[in-house]
Amino acid sequence: MSNDFPELASGMAAIAKGFHARGWLLGTSGNLSAVVQREPLRLAMSPSGVDKGELRPDQMLLIDEQAQPLSDSRKPSDESLLHVQIVKERGAGAVLHTHSVWNTILSELYAADGGVTISGFEMLKGLQGVQTHEHTEWLPIIDNSQDMPSLAVSVAETLNEHKAVHGFLLRRHGLYSWGETLAQAKRHVEILEFLLETMGRTLHIQGGVKHGGSHDSQ
Amino acid sequence: MSNDFPELASGMAAIAKGFHARGWLLGTSGNLSAVVQREPLRLAMSPSGVDKGELRPDQMLLIDEQAQPLSDSRKPSDESLLHVQIVKERGAGAVLHTHSVWNTILSELYAADGGVTISGFEMLKGLQGVQTHEHTEWLPIIDNSQDMPSLAVSVAETLNEHKAVHGFLLRRHGLYSWGETLAQAKRHVEILEFLLETMGRTLHIQGGVKHGGSHDSQ
Amino acid sequence: MSNDFPELASGMAAIAKGFHARGWLLGTSGNLSAVVQREPLRLAMSPSGVDKGELRPDQMLLIDEQAQPLSDSRKPSDESLLHVQIVKERGAGAVLHTHSVWNTILSELYAADGGVTISGFEMLKGLQGVQTHEHTEWLPIIDNSQDMPSLAVSVAETLNEHKAVHGFLLRRHGLYSWGETLAQAKRHVEILEFLLETMGRTLHIQGGVKHGGSHDSQ
Amino acid sequence: MSNDFPELASGMAAIAKGFHARGWLLGTSGNLSAVVQREPLRLAMSPSGVDKGELRPDQMLLIDEQAQPLSDSRKPSDESLLHVQIVKERGAGAVLHTHSVWNTILSELYAADGGVTISGFEMLKGLQGVQTHEHTEWLPIIDNSQDMPSLAVSVAETLNEHKAVHGFLLRRHGLYSWGETLAQAKRHVEILEFLLETMGRTLHIQGGVKHGGSHDSQ
Repeated sequence: MSNDFPELASGMAAIAKGFHARGWLLGTSGNLSAVVQREPLRLAMSPSGVDKGELRPDQMLLIDEQAQPLSDSRKPSDESLLHVQIVKERGAGAVLHTHSVWNTILSELYAADGGVTISGFEMLKGLQGVQTHEHTEWLPIIDNSQDMPSLAVSVAETLNEHKAVHGFLLRRHGLYSWGETLAQAKRHVEILEFLLETMGRTLHIQGGVKHGGSHDSQ
Repeated sequence: MSNDFPELASGMAAIAKGFHARGWLLGTSGNLSAVVQREPLRLAMSPSGVDKGELRPDQMLLIDEQAQPLSDSRKPSDESLLHVQIVKERGAGAVLHTHSVWNTILSELYAADGGVTISGFEMLKGLQGVQTHEHTEWLPIIDNSQDMPSLAVSVAETLNEHKAVHGFLLRRHGLYSWGETLAQAKRHVEILEFLLETMGRTLHIQGGVKHGGSHDSQ
Repeated sequence: MSNDFPELASGMAAIAKGFHARGWLLGTSGNLSAVVQREPLRLAMSPSGVDKGELRPDQMLLIDEQAQPLSDSRKPSDESLLHVQIVKERGAGAVLHTHSVWNTILSELYAADGGVTISGFEMLKGLQGVQTHEHTEWLPIIDNSQDMPSLAVSVAETLNEHKAVHGFLLRRHGLYSWGETLAQAKRHVEILEFLLETMGRTLHIQGGVKHGGSHDSQ
Repeated sequence: MSNDFPELASGMAAIAKGFHARGWLLGTSGNLSAVVQREPLRLAMSPSGVDKGELRPDQMLLIDEQAQPLSDSRKPSDESLLHVQIVKERGAGAVLHTHSVWNTILSELYAADGGVTISGFEMLKGLQGVQTHEHTEWLPIIDNSQDMPSLAVSVAETLNEHKAVHGFLLRRHGLYSWGETLAQAKRHVEILEFLLETMGRTLHIQGGVKHGGSHDSQ
């Protein structure tokens, strides 16, 4: 067992507090995870139904690959299975899920396209592996579901089909992003939230959404 | 007499500070209450005309079922009777009232419909009793009035007719929501404010309100 | 000489910090004053060109009726004469001036009408003397000018003509409001800023400004 | 060597924290510099890839005219050459670069015009050398590029051609502004960000951009 659980838990609580202040984790929504150990898989996971603006490090749970709590009888986040899926598909070290007004709006406006195309912004350079603003980022939109195992399969399929994406949206639900570390995951979320807001506000001025076609695997 | 008045007062002051920071309690608007005792009814109530961003626990009043202060000569919130009404109708443990830009705008835009229909959002799952995003939430809009006893009756009638609602809007006034505890009431307000903002901003892009018909009792 | 100058200075610094955080006093804009003594008139005045988010109580100046500093060689706010004018016309105890995005936008959009009509909002009840939401508030718009004595005369004329107004806008410049105390002035500014934002955002949805006629003296 | 490096580093960290809170430096974007010494040129520079909301004074680097770090093996900001260019062209004492939603949106909407014309706002008076609101500020838009030496040349040419401008936009990238001191640079950024947001929101209401012609050298 790795011994940085307290450090990860502190980092998660700090990120949660900052995101809640921005309105990205209101009403106990959203969840955060970080990998404590890979074999067997152990994740530090945020608990279910807790105010993310007041989340304390000691409230973080340790869960296994089946999203079962190991050191606790408290309930981990309902979406823990999605975090596990992303960690396995991407080898991520941390996964963050936000509910923001803009990511919610765009997840609906672009649902017919199956995703959002974001290109040409310098902000994209902050995403891992992106070297230039002349980059086209595809942010897939997956239909929401309460069937978590089924949704986890959809997530795995999407990540398998689009190997370069840095996040995805759940329709009328929110954004998932990740990183090798909590810091990189935080950076990715900030960048994607920024870009979604930028595109959303531009839509206001332009007077609506211009729909593109579906997006090939990349 | 329950002995958690200081604890409730602290919780109320903390919520007030956070909501004021978000712009939901500007200009001494809004009010907060929490049940100290049920028989006879005793509520911890925020005082009238106090800056909610600087509300201290020692400023909270104790009021009775007629909204009369018991331990003080200071004036409780003008809307104390509405808090009493909600506590009685719903058995709530805490009631919160916010004035936000978005709840004010939507209370006017949907006034002709008598309420706002909110459906399909994952955020709805944070409302007590809601298990899925495939839920339709009705947020009634009640006409504003300065006749507080009369308005309390309107509130009681509305809550009686719509037994599943988690809040209501007063037209051109603000949002009321509640919970079994202060934490749940806070969560409900955050969720409803989030959803009203999401719908309001979507209206910008869509170019206006699509009016539905009136809403049957549920 | 009254001995609450330190207390007023502390209050002004606290208000400035909060308003700057909201984006209402960016780039050293805006100014604040409070009456220390009425005969002869002495105002505590914010200094010129200082970051309002970092304004310290010890930076406040004491000025006289001609807006001349009494205890300092530092420069008081350029608009000190307007503060003096408002104090004299209204007997105000404190005057606050903000530059917000929304008050700037509406000061231009309604310039042709000579002011903004705000009615029917519960938030209006927080303005001194207003008992009901069924109130129509007139917020005059005065053309901006760098000729401060001349602008002070325009302000005096406007306040003389509209004896019930609680504030006014300077076109493409900002909002002035006041109160008997710093607390009341702060409340008035928060209420007017809230209402201007509410109306501004509603304009987005409605698709533009509906102009009314000029407004008779009230 | 000047001995105010620690002081400048502290000032830069404080500005970064405030700007990050406003959403102007999300996702490790943006950069800050301050002149420690002019001959030979030495700048305190923010490091590459660091969360600007958590930037510490001890993380600041010292770089030379070629943007090479002198006291460190850590990597300075990718855009250090632009900071050097601005310091040389304008004799600036500090340079700040932000990525905000509004500056990004307007950098795209007005790209065809080559810049944004901002006139008539009182806020313009906070820009160095501007005495009145009856001022027309030109904010050039330069095409973005990953070729930093080439971009630095574009910046130099633009600043040479428009000797009165207080900032410029990089298309779909962000805002650069500067000042004689960190305080003045901060003031300039706050003013320009405020004005860009004001114009952007006004565009919503007006229903789109009214394009002007190209802008002559000034």
